Amino acid sequence: MKVTLLRHTPEPERTVAMAARLCYSASTIGELEGKVAGSSQEKFLGKILKMGHLSVLEHASFTFGIEGISRAASHQLVRHRLASYSQQSQRYVTATDPEFVVPPTIAADPGLKKRFEKEARSAYDAYSRLVARGVPPEDARYLLPNAACTKIIVTMNARELLHFFTLRCCDRAQWEIREMATMMLKQARAVAPFIFRDSGPSCVRGKCSEGEMTCGRPKETRERFRNL
Amino acid sequence: MKVTLLRHTPEPERTVAMAARLCYSASTIGELEGKVAGSSQEKFLGKILKMGHLSVLEHASFTFGIEGISRAASHQLVRHRLASYSQQSQRYVTATDPEFVVPPTIAADPGLKKRFEKEARSAYDAYSRLVARGVPPEDARYLLPNAACTKIIVTMNARELLHFFTLRCCDRAQWEIREMATMMLKQARAVAPFIFRDSGPSCVRGKCSEGEMTCGRPKETRERFRNL
Amino acid sequence: MKVTLLRHTPEPERTVAMAARLCYSASTIGELEGKVAGSSQEKFLGKILKMGHLSVLEHASFTFGIEGISRAASHQLVRHRLASYSQQSQRYVTATDPEFVVPPTIAADPGLKKRFEKEARSAYDAYSRLVARGVPPEDARYLLPNAACTKIIVTMNARELLHFFTLRCCDRAQWEIREMATMMLKQARAVAPFIFRDSGPSCVRGKCSEGEMTCGRPKETRERFRNL
Amino acid sequence: MKVTLLRHTPEPERTVAMAARLCYSASTIGELEGKVAGSSQEKFLGKILKMGHLSVLEHASFTFGIEGISRAASHQLVRHRLASYSQQSQRYVTATDPEFVVPPTIAADPGLKKRFEKEARSAYDAYSRLVARGVPPEDARYLLPNAACTKIIVTMNARELLHFFTLRCCDRAQWEIREMATMMLKQARAVAPFIFRDSGPSCVRGKCSEGEMTCGRPKETRERFRNL
Repeated sequence: MKVTLLRHTPEPERTVAMAARLCYSASTIGELEGKVAGSSQEKFLGKILKMGHLSVLEHASFTFGIEGISRAASHQLVRHRLASYSQQSQRYVTATDPEFVVPPTIAADPGLKKRFEKEARSAYDAYSRLVARGVPPEDARYLLPNAACTKIIVTMNARELLHFFTLRCCDRAQWEIREMATMMLKQARAVAPFIFRDSGPSCVRGKCSEGEMTCGRPKETRERFRNL
Repeated sequence: MKVTLLRHTPEPERTVAMAARLCYSASTIGELEGKVAGSSQEKFLGKILKMGHLSVLEHASFTFGIEGISRAASHQLVRHRLASYSQQSQRYVTATDPEFVVPPTIAADPGLKKRFEKEARSAYDAYSRLVARGVPPEDARYLLPNAACTKIIVTMNARELLHFFTLRCCDRAQWEIREMATMMLKQARAVAPFIFRDSGPSCVRGKCSEGEMTCGRPKETRERFRNL
Repeated sequence: MKVTLLRHTPEPERTVAMAARLCYSASTIGELEGKVAGSSQEKFLGKILKMGHLSVLEHASFTFGIEGISRAASHQLVRHRLASYSQQSQRYVTATDPEFVVPPTIAADPGLKKRFEKEARSAYDAYSRLVARGVPPEDARYLLPNAACTKIIVTMNARELLHFFTLRCCDRAQWEIREMATMMLKQARAVAPFIFRDSGPSCVRGKCSEGEMTCGRPKETRERFRNL
Repeated sequence: MKVTLLRHTPEPERTVAMAARLCYSASTIGELEGKVAGSSQEKFLGKILKMGHLSVLEHASFTFGIEGISRAASHQLVRHRLASYSQQSQRYVTATDPEFVVPPTIAADPGLKKRFEKEARSAYDAYSRLVARGVPPEDARYLLPNAACTKIIVTMNARELLHFFTLRCCDRAQWEIREMATMMLKQARAVAPFIFRDSGPSCVRGKCSEGEMTCGRPKETRERFRNL
């Protein structure tokens, strides 16, 4: 899996702070742009965000390139509707090599891994034979496994990212989208350290929101996400 | 594939007509409800929709139950973001029987069909063995094919449905989602005949919007969708 | 102010419960429809909602007719983007009578009220004179006050309504939209008592989410919203 | 009115072209970033957009600062839901000076203008007296006119901007939002000339979409928007 932060709104935190100030200020936007340059912006922004006024975060958007994830993971990903996606098509791009993801629970056992890979390769072979026989790739792909690799470009704003990280960095999420979300969080935090400071599963910020189905180790998780 | 219109806003066309009238009228909402009862509502509504003022259509929503479609089709479906989805989970529901979709291009050739089914069954077998060996279903499913059946409940409003039918009833869409969209259209039209009268691919209403990649038979398509 | 629940998805709670069950069940949708008929649906639904899996609530939508609110309130209302609106137009509908809202802080003081009404009437008079002089109503209305009455039809699904009620039933919201939201909640609860049972400001369900700016009387508020 | 393009996705057109290519290519995202650098990107992008595959445009977002528009215009603006807004609050910011917009149809006639300004100032005076008497600004503002100035920061992606410009640059839109949209278009085109080349009312690209209510001068309009 490869995750790359391709683009983001320039000066994302200053942008957000300026938008937050505008709501409560009589200053012109030009004046505000100057005012939010200093360190005071963090204090103000922190107060706003703590109050749950998250809409200002929507002015900062982030575009990620994601490669080498499975179609199982991309199907989960695109269920987040407040985002934009461009995905490599299995209808228009013919798979030439068997590229697939092996879940760690399987990869950890050499015997299971071998069987998994054999079965996945067999599916790719059958796909190739169907294509060679004139079946359109869009139909032949019905044999390709959920494990098949895909590429996708994703754009989300900071508000949606915070929500996405809360759900998908949690141990309750499946390992693959969790790994992906954690890499996205690390890269987003590198360019917007204040906004994403406490980002991650809900336990990073306090109480677990997943009800009775807790993972049993919020302290460990909290530590891990604080020091990503 | 089974498509069932489970629920819809009561009196969808009267609801939409009432909302349209409100924008241009000094009457109370109670008075409007009475006024839009007659046949005149269609004339007014037709004028509004022809002008492209489609937002009034959002007040009528439709909930469909869809069963027996492939995960290939559901991955396409959930890319429509102005809609609500509840899908049977491959993480929490273990597949006990091999249920999968065979594309017509493959089903039409007994030899291809046999191979396809053999390969798909083999994938389900491998899945079951992994589960039996203690692999979580959410990981074992990485071997399940795109063809694997899923169930999903979908809610869209009439505006989004019109857009969805334009894209997905078109010959450019893949056969499976096209079949599904066409069944949805037929059922939506049964309860809102005026709104969905000219619904379907863009050629039903005039010029093809798919640029140079036309199907070559808009006349036939137009006829088919008018008499669904 | 007049708030009327005009339409809603039939059997909203059964619809939502059916969608929730689908995610975790191997049953057909037809079987599920039967299963969720009994009282057990509430227990299951309660568990799902407590875990924060709110997307199933989107399958139930509610359409309200709202009359006699100010344009100040409607400007706040339409900031909620996951909703559909049809509003009486000040461009196409000429105001014939001065209809406006007087805030309670002003109405409580006869002197202030008199001045307020005089000023508002003066604005309407000036508006009418401009229209009489041939100024288009869309321009003449620049003189109409924020207090001017408007009518609007609003459709939201149950998930958005819960969010809307959390923000707008709170004492931090302005009195007018709070009054409106509270009337909407009361009517939504009448047809979906389980979904909206704990609905209202965040304090109804536990801790205040409005940070340091609490109203100082969460207990009273909680009581009020529970017995609406 | 002052419109400033505050931020935008860096290299917006290259970003969009890269996303478009990804859908149809087996290349890695790193390779694609190189490939879309040349002039060929425009040809490819043009083909994609002509076919109506507009979702790739969502990866480029634009943030505008808008000052000196009326609350009448901002109420229209925020009806566009696929966008993000931060607006100066009339609840939390007390108006100290009468700042308001005079429509051109009124400004053109010295007599009307004088009356308009007198009435608007009178509303602001009444507002200030109410505030001085202890009425909360959020309630006193019920007297402020639609003409009252506001400031707002708006973020839209390129897809929504194209839609927004189609509706709001048209002569059917009110003069103020049309003036604002036209200034936004000019600035967006300066940084993304290819994407916004044919942007503006529908007549710029061909047939008027406003049905029978045409302005009667599409040729003139087309010329104007091409040479903005």
